[in-house]
Amino acid sequence: MSEAAGAQFGVAGMGVMGAALALNIADHGFRVAGWDRHPERIDALLKKNPHAKLKGFSSLEDFVQGLERPRRVLLMVTAGAAVDQMMERLFPLLSPGDVIMDAGNSWFLDTRRREELCKSKGLHFLGIGVSGGEEGARHGPSIMPGGPQEAYALVRPVLEAIAARAESGLCVTHVGPEGAGHFVKMVHNGIEYADMQLLAETYDVLRRGLGMDADSLARLFSKWNEGIAESFLLETTIQVLRKKDAETGKPLVDLVLDKAGQKGTGKWTVQVALDLGVPVPSIAAALDARNLSSMKEERVAASQKLKGSAEQLTPEESSQLAAWAHDALYAARVVTYAQGMRLIQAASNEYKWNVSLAEMARIWRGGCIIRAKLLTPLRESFEKQPTLPNLVVSDAFAPVLERMAPAWRKLVAAATKVGIPVPVFSATLAYLDSYRSPELPQNLTQAQRDAFGAHTYQRRDRPEAGFVHTEWNK
Amino acid sequence: MSEAAGAQFGVAGMGVMGAALALNIADHGFRVAGWDRHPERIDALLKKNPHAKLKGFSSLEDFVQGLERPRRVLLMVTAGAAVDQMMERLFPLLSPGDVIMDAGNSWFLDTRRREELCKSKGLHFLGIGVSGGEEGARHGPSIMPGGPQEAYALVRPVLEAIAARAESGLCVTHVGPEGAGHFVKMVHNGIEYADMQLLAETYDVLRRGLGMDADSLARLFSKWNEGIAESFLLETTIQVLRKKDAETGKPLVDLVLDKAGQKGTGKWTVQVALDLGVPVPSIAAALDARNLSSMKEERVAASQKLKGSAEQLTPEESSQLAAWAHDALYAARVVTYAQGMRLIQAASNEYKWNVSLAEMARIWRGGCIIRAKLLTPLRESFEKQPTLPNLVVSDAFAPVLERMAPAWRKLVAAATKVGIPVPVFSATLAYLDSYRSPELPQNLTQAQRDAFGAHTYQRRDRPEAGFVHTEWNK
Repeated sequence: MSEAAGAQFGVAGMGVMGAALALNIADHGFRVAGWDRHPERIDALLKKNPHAKLKGFSSLEDFVQGLERPRRVLLMVTAGAAVDQMMERLFPLLSPGDVIMDAGNSWFLDTRRREELCKSKGLHFLGIGVSGGEEGARHGPSIMPGGPQEAYALVRPVLEAIAARAESGLCVTHVGPEGAGHFVKMVHNGIEYADMQLLAETYDVLRRGLGMDADSLARLFSKWNEGIAESFLLETTIQVLRKKDAETGKPLVDLVLDKAGQKGTGKWTVQVALDLGVPVPSIAAALDARNLSSMKEERVAASQKLKGSAEQLTPEESSQLAAWAHDALYAARVVTYAQGMRLIQAASNEYKWNVSLAEMARIWRGGCIIRAKLLTPLRESFEKQPTLPNLVVSDAFAPVLERMAPAWRKLVAAATKVGIPVPVFSATLAYLDSYRSPELPQNLTQAQRDAFGAHTYQRRDRPEAGFVHTEWNK
Repeated sequence: MSEAAGAQFGVAGMGVMGAALALNIADHGFRVAGWDRHPERIDALLKKNPHAKLKGFSSLEDFVQGLERPRRVLLMVTAGAAVDQMMERLFPLLSPGDVIMDAGNSWFLDTRRREELCKSKGLHFLGIGVSGGEEGARHGPSIMPGGPQEAYALVRPVLEAIAARAESGLCVTHVGPEGAGHFVKMVHNGIEYADMQLLAETYDVLRRGLGMDADSLARLFSKWNEGIAESFLLETTIQVLRKKDAETGKPLVDLVLDKAGQKGTGKWTVQVALDLGVPVPSIAAALDARNLSSMKEERVAASQKLKGSAEQLTPEESSQLAAWAHDALYAARVVTYAQGMRLIQAASNEYKWNVSLAEMARIWRGGCIIRAKLLTPLRESFEKQPTLPNLVVSDAFAPVLERMAPAWRKLVAAATKVGIPVPVFSATLAYLDSYRSPELPQNLTQAQRDAFGAHTYQRRDRPEAGFVHTEWNK
């Protein structure tokens, strides 16, 4: 094979996501080489999806030699040590000017380290967030590449060809240098956790509170999905609620075990937010909800000891609950996205990435898991005011939050009364109420800290005096 | 000075805490050497507190040479790099068999690393958590030493002499190997954050909800402090509320700026809890509350755009609010401590530390910041059942939680209605309600994850089938 006819793009790791991306790229007319360490995985893929533009390899040497220069190799392997191992295997096979892309859910500081390592070898490195699941990867994901501009320029035509197309344009942009792409993807996943938990709580309140079954919930949510609450995850919820078990004919969702885990990106989002001092209580509460769900056996045992609330919803509450849930879901989702955007802004400031929040909202508008109608006014808000401190005070959203908050309050109060846990609804509302409170009770906190630990405090009537100490017990 | 008359204990770092510990040790008849890199700090201390048993040094060489062997050197310097630097300076001056103790708020994995390093040099190392603030350090702190048993034996007489004495005995015990002591101190501080925030929210609800002033709050809390809610932090709150500004005569707490920060141990507690998969939502929400409070200028600006709730408390709610707050405070505190104990248990299992939760409750009963009456039934619960999965299902607390939860629900509902943020009250209640729910809505979450990401799920009617995948859109 002459070099001219070599593959224009290589994908290393042909699991679900790697295979879908390789086929997507091949569909757009690029010659693609796919490598996997399991030859049978390559064979099965090509048998199921014969494609003139896609060639499979199980020898890494042959795979690399078959690539046009500069070589473009996208890694789609499990985040962590596997990425480093793949890079070590590739280094002796690559030449200066080649590009390695890591499209897994990598920790953004690993990405920075890997970029440095590649630079020292004359190689380019990009950390690329890819969202959309298998379907997105196959037919148009949202793509969040981070790294040097010149490296991005070398792969941009391919990424633009395969990215989702939304009303807002192509769902790919150069996010920023270093680990900016992976950071943004991490926050995207953090928002995803919170958004999914809001849907779970909505479902739970209506199911346990009103006794609604899967079919009536699907009908209600379908109506919601025609309005401002429209989102991919709401659509997925409807799909899930409608699916019947082949055997029993029952709604399949009722047969799914209520145990979910958390790992990687969601957890990192909360951990790094704490390092940056940015509150993301909605995401933190969503992780905790999953961890609590995983303690199924303990929960069943605890329910014998703790009976919970004996209170019932009033007829008035029952008749309003669904309407309240709609407004609560939309408003809480807005405040959740607001927390995520603020976290990206803080990291961008900290690491000098110069990330455009408007652009992030634009490339999330299609392809990705958290795509939703609200991303359009969200994007416009940041276009109008790129340094908006918090989305909740934007002209687009503040009035909506004011209008919807009463219903949100009633939903939380009603669920709290009857003992249905709504951790993300309540944490998100507390965030909003704290953020809009000119006075909070941390004057007491500061006085306490000074009283037992001599930590000093500031006086509100004498800011110029700086930090002072008082003997509170005298 | 002959070696026989050398100091029996050395304290390096004579800041507020170091000086207080040195004086405490000297008070108990031990000859103490105190070192500080600022000679003037030593001079000032000895001038203010002349003590026959305490000798000051500003030369580290002289300080070390003046110690009896095996030398016992306690570091009280800022956690982080300063500890490593002090150790590097000490290494050439010490001899095999000597003991270094780090009594700062160090990260427990640093402690493990430092112990290894010391071991390689024939030295002993202990990571010691110390709680109680300046007052505790001076007159009886709670002490949480971790490290090798044989090292603990070398310093045990001194630590036992200076520790607080409570109804439960001496507030010191060998916590476990490696970083177990620092881990337990970290969790202690995490609980402290949550407990302080519960008091802040109680104060805020009664202040904003009922218009109670500092004096009437002090009177109310004094009554509470005579009952089961008795705690050091509640006592501190009363003291703070009673203090008048010398100049204006107004309650001083009203003049304190409502901006608090978070750092170190509180943050680490939440971060490591996520790594261990243990939910600590009460602590996480307390950190977020502090971070939100620090955004004072933004909050004032946001209050112009977001007016919040127009709802008022009903007369019935107003008349009951203080009684609800009492029960809510006690019950939420129980559930907060429960989260902390579970986190210690998880770390103890993970790192094979064999920490006794009953012993931790015992040594927290006096001296430390989170000492409280509830630690007595808490200790008894873990004595009776060392592997109790969660304090909330214990015979001692489950009935109390059942009795108090209705008031707690009403408090959260009322505050939510009128727009007073109660993030820790609501997060803690959601934790309890989740933990006692045999069914949670994460069946929907798992179905969604399988629908968009082919992540598979388990069926509740066919657990033996393991993880399965469904085409939800067909």
